[in-house]
Amino acid sequence: DVEVEEAHGGTQSSHRLLAYSDALLSIIATVMILPVAHTKMEADEELDDNLQLLLGTKVAVYLMTFLIVTVAWAAHILFQVIVRIDDTLALLNLACMMLITLLPYTFSLMANFPAHVLGILLFCGCVMVIGLIQSVIVLYAFGRPFLLQHQIQSCEDRSVYRHHILKVLLRVPVMCLLAAVCSFFCYQLSYVLLALVIFLPYISPAEEDPEQVMFYTFLPSEPLSKERVEAFSDGVYAIVATLLILDISEDNVPDPASVQQHFNGSLVAALRSYGSEYLAYLGSFATVGLLWFAHHSLFLQVSRATRAMGLLNTLSLAFVGGLPLAFRLTHELPLAALRDERRAVQASCVLVFGAGVFQLATWVAALQGGGRRTLRPAVRYGGPEHVFMLAKLALYPAVALAAFLLTCVLSRFSVTIFHLMEIATPLAFLLLRLMVRFASALLKHL
Amino acid sequence: DVEVEEAHGGTQSSHRLLAYSDALLSIIATVMILPVAHTKMEADEELDDNLQLLLGTKVAVYLMTFLIVTVAWAAHILFQVIVRIDDTLALLNLACMMLITLLPYTFSLMANFPAHVLGILLFCGCVMVIGLIQSVIVLYAFGRPFLLQHQIQSCEDRSVYRHHILKVLLRVPVMCLLAAVCSFFCYQLSYVLLALVIFLPYISPAEEDPEQVMFYTFLPSEPLSKERVEAFSDGVYAIVATLLILDISEDNVPDPASVQQHFNGSLVAALRSYGSEYLAYLGSFATVGLLWFAHHSLFLQVSRATRAMGLLNTLSLAFVGGLPLAFRLTHELPLAALRDERRAVQASCVLVFGAGVFQLATWVAALQGGGRRTLRPAVRYGGPEHVFMLAKLALYPAVALAAFLLTCVLSRFSVTIFHLMEIATPLAFLLLRLMVRFASALLKHL
Repeated sequence: DVEVEEAHGGTQSSHRLLAYSDALLSIIATVMILPVAHTKMEADEELDDNLQLLLGTKVAVYLMTFLIVTVAWAAHILFQVIVRIDDTLALLNLACMMLITLLPYTFSLMANFPAHVLGILLFCGCVMVIGLIQSVIVLYAFGRPFLLQHQIQSCEDRSVYRHHILKVLLRVPVMCLLAAVCSFFCYQLSYVLLALVIFLPYISPAEEDPEQVMFYTFLPSEPLSKERVEAFSDGVYAIVATLLILDISEDNVPDPASVQQHFNGSLVAALRSYGSEYLAYLGSFATVGLLWFAHHSLFLQVSRATRAMGLLNTLSLAFVGGLPLAFRLTHELPLAALRDERRAVQASCVLVFGAGVFQLATWVAALQGGGRRTLRPAVRYGGPEHVFMLAKLALYPAVALAAFLLTCVLSRFSVTIFHLMEIATPLAFLLLRLMVRFASALLKHL
Repeated sequence: DVEVEEAHGGTQSSHRLLAYSDALLSIIATVMILPVAHTKMEADEELDDNLQLLLGTKVAVYLMTFLIVTVAWAAHILFQVIVRIDDTLALLNLACMMLITLLPYTFSLMANFPAHVLGILLFCGCVMVIGLIQSVIVLYAFGRPFLLQHQIQSCEDRSVYRHHILKVLLRVPVMCLLAAVCSFFCYQLSYVLLALVIFLPYISPAEEDPEQVMFYTFLPSEPLSKERVEAFSDGVYAIVATLLILDISEDNVPDPASVQQHFNGSLVAALRSYGSEYLAYLGSFATVGLLWFAHHSLFLQVSRATRAMGLLNTLSLAFVGGLPLAFRLTHELPLAALRDERRAVQASCVLVFGAGVFQLATWVAALQGGGRRTLRPAVRYGGPEHVFMLAKLALYPAVALAAFLLTCVLSRFSVTIFHLMEIATPLAFLLLRLMVRFASALLKHL
């Protein structure tokens, strides 16, 4: 490999480029929760006013942005075909990344002015230029075959591959062109077309067609690269964990003057007033950390990710990306009325439940057909880890559901109880392991 | 490898855990620039008032946090020794990560109340608990040798390794214990001790001592893992690029009501008023992207990173992390006075210059001793890429210096010119490549 590199002076392995793009894309997708989480909430305002409508719109924008960026990430697979890059390709890729970072902006423009042609045009224009640059990258690389993957490099009829890749790449930009044209006559139709774009990679009847599968990795045995799914997921979990501490560091450092004024100069007393916020932070971090842990345990047993698993994983990540909002809701609200406190806990439960239940669904989808092609033997039906994996993945949905039901029954269920539940869950994980081990030992003895 | 896994049911490769921790740490280090960048700047306030003092303090806090988190990252090397993990280790690591996320908070508490014992105690307590958890991880793993690296696993006298690792791990917590005790008598001395902690990994006379080198990777041929340096750097660049778009998405989406009111319902006119901000975004993204590109080109030619290179790379990254501040300064200030506009450009130039010049310094440090142990032949003295690498790495320091000098000479040098310079620089990169190629072709013919 080093020799190849020496032979073509300026070229470089594309591995780090792909890793960097993955990190960038996962952060772009997730960080868009911040405008939602930072929606100003007054202490005297009730949660179910205009605020709820505003939050609803913002959450919808966040969700769509997340899904769109995921589509862009899936399309960026082309650097699995182009395994060596030179300076031109690296710069073209950076241009592509820059346009992708603009997608959330054009999208929120579109969401704020839904009936305005300009928003739709800007968004579609962005997507079309991205497609154009990606096509240029493909054409450039096929003109210099030493940049391509070994399998294609040694193939005689490379133009078939080129044609096929271009066809798949340009599908989304063409849809956007249609949507842009439609926007002049009937903007509702444009939105239908754009919604199609998001679900296109999952809907299209591809899994059976070997030529289509080929595009997704060029190795029919692995339709989605498991490593890339892991890298993208790690990015989302890491940025969510960090956004939590950002809130604490920005808001909860007392001002020296106010400490002097309100707490007689006692820093301890000033910090004590933030007590509930520390608890909220610990609880939220424990939740994010353990959801990552469950994800990590699951994907360790996955040998190959299908498209359905990819979609379910993306949905789980979209809920994980919403957790900073849950944190914000539950640590801002001890000020507000009791009824709102319950609503905040319920919203948090929904987010945690969504994140957990889609993880579970990913595993269930992998179990289809016995999991022979998708899972390692240990967690398939009858495997030694099967029950334990089920318990691990079902833990968070169960806890969230229980908390939700408790809020309906108990009138005094508070944010504090919710956070204590969150903190206690890691111990449940360890307890679970002990119990499963004990039960299996018991079964062996019988 | 799969067989080993099957043999020890619950254990897993630690690779993804390490990658996740790296991502988390790089984001924590960088995201702390946000409180600096979001310091409220009134349009009528001048940059050189109390604001400058406030910004100065915040920048100092950011820098120290960045360096401290980098130390934590370097200490987290222990998962290169422990190559397999089980559930207990994964949970202990998450606890460790949570405490590391608290470091920036305790640090800014300390910075706001420098003479207060509590800030110092909390910070030192945090570091000590992290050291304690890391020690528990080491003891736990050495009690289960199948979790350890193959080389140590097959070694007869493992307790020597354990003793050595614990000694190195506990060095920082012990320093913090001393600092905590000192804080009761003389808090200035505490700060001296804490400053020592930051530079300890780089200062200590280790490189020659084979036993010390061993700790840093257990392979004397590679004192810092190049892959981990790359992963950490990628995280910093990715989050910086994302923070830029966050500002745009949060502030520059016009409100439908105000468009109706101020622009007669013309969205185009409303967006045109943000023109300078788009220019600022394009310029800043181009700068971040190309700095990443230069970093990528450099580390591709690095075969092994020494500690001096690690320190210089960290300093470069600290400046890169400051770029969102430069963006904020230059796109907020068209409102303010001309003198401030020049100051803002000058501050940005300093940040870009710092990022570029420390990259260059990393390469110069690698060239020490001919670069035989640290660099690939192509970029050493006399290598075919040597001049080109120099040109690539010197480009940004040169551009930043030129812009800085221009602000001193031209009284009308504006933010717009600065951003146009930033956007033009990528073209200079391509031009550079053509020129170097042309020159070397010319030299061959002579």
